[in-house]
Amino acid sequence: MNLLLLEASELADGGRVTLVDERAEHVRRVLRALPGQEVRAGVVDGPMGQVRVVEVHPDRVVFDASALSEAPVPARPRVDLLLALPRPKVFARLLPAIAELGVGQLDVTNAAKVERYYFDSHQLAPEEIRRRLLVGLSQAKDTRLPLVRVFRSFRKLVEDELPEGSRRIYADTDAALPSPGALVRGADRVLLAIGPEGGWVDFELGLLQRNGFVGGSFGPRVLSSDVACLVALGLVHDALRG
Amino acid sequence: MNLLLLEASELADGGRVTLVDERAEHVRRVLRALPGQEVRAGVVDGPMGQVRVVEVHPDRVVFDASALSEAPVPARPRVDLLLALPRPKVFARLLPAIAELGVGQLDVTNAAKVERYYFDSHQLAPEEIRRRLLVGLSQAKDTRLPLVRVFRSFRKLVEDELPEGSRRIYADTDAALPSPGALVRGADRVLLAIGPEGGWVDFELGLLQRNGFVGGSFGPRVLSSDVACLVALGLVHDALRG
Repeated sequence: MNLLLLEASELADGGRVTLVDERAEHVRRVLRALPGQEVRAGVVDGPMGQVRVVEVHPDRVVFDASALSEAPVPARPRVDLLLALPRPKVFARLLPAIAELGVGQLDVTNAAKVERYYFDSHQLAPEEIRRRLLVGLSQAKDTRLPLVRVFRSFRKLVEDELPEGSRRIYADTDAALPSPGALVRGADRVLLAIGPEGGWVDFELGLLQRNGFVGGSFGPRVLSSDVACLVALGLVHDALRG
Repeated sequence: MNLLLLEASELADGGRVTLVDERAEHVRRVLRALPGQEVRAGVVDGPMGQVRVVEVHPDRVVFDASALSEAPVPARPRVDLLLALPRPKVFARLLPAIAELGVGQLDVTNAAKVERYYFDSHQLAPEEIRRRLLVGLSQAKDTRLPLVRVFRSFRKLVEDELPEGSRRIYADTDAALPSPGALVRGADRVLLAIGPEGGWVDFELGLLQRNGFVGGSFGPRVLSSDVACLVALGLVHDALRG
């Protein structure tokens, strides 16, 4: 935990925050914080700065978070992700990593090669998704929670609901295609599409292409879609940074 | 499974191969291969090409692999990885992904912030490591198995045992450092060092630096070490490809 993340609702008037859960435990046991000490903290989708430890008890830690209100709010990540829903177990594991790497909007979608029962998983419950994304933000030191939407219709998503004004890239296995990173140059925002484990079917690929997506690849190696997702996010962020 | 991986010991004289395990199952159920059909296949650390399905039975599939002996052997990946041993569960999950992305030599090492008991895990059994790496090769369509070594002494590894002639890079959290990709330009081979979840301690960092390692970072976001490992491998491969 590199950032103590607070909910706006936890900030009482005057900026006092009392934590009793695993965050308090972390501050007490791992950081071994003492009263007076400052801890890096942020408010979900809000400012990021420092809070001061005021009291440390066996069952709770009290902070003075009044300085947070003056702290700057981090910019939203410049990459959005369109992700064909992976197996629930893989999805659960990807969420913290996606938040770590930084995604502004996460659109999870059905596709021909997505099993329907994936959508019934408890891993798709909004509070479960949120919890896993917060783990990633706390790791990465960011407060900007990805906006998550789940689509049962890939066509509706691509035709009507995509964020506008982004460079649109999909990950492909054709080794002759350029790197996703190379496709980013000069872009301000990027929308990255990652298909299901078995790939997009022709209809889906055509729909992506007609809607402005260009294909990028990782060379001759065929990556599984979860590895491709993380590596593509890394390459795109790296290119935007450069 | 994008590549049917065979062991050299499975190739009988005349190139006949009979498979009875989950590979036969995959060829029968997923590829629905019929006699006469060709399937992409390779020999572990050997050639990669096509084999011909000769017989399909409920309990086994017989192949003619004689064409494989004429097929080319893929080049060894140009990236080696020095990896501080992660939690066994994370290590197990990383292995297929490491093989997917492509690593020539994988040196797993102790470090100050690696828990000693990690080394007692059955996940470190050579046959278990090999099994997981083969999954990644089969996904990526490669036959070159990473050479794995496990070191209890980080110092001995860095001072005496590192591969020579590579650009040496370690992943760091200092946002001011350049991208690992940018550090690769002009290199023929790269040796990438990924530290433990809590980072390298000063002694370890000093040892790396005195032995020619330079630091690269992913910008202001602090990645967990497993995500950093995959993204750094992706960035380095991408830079080598460009």
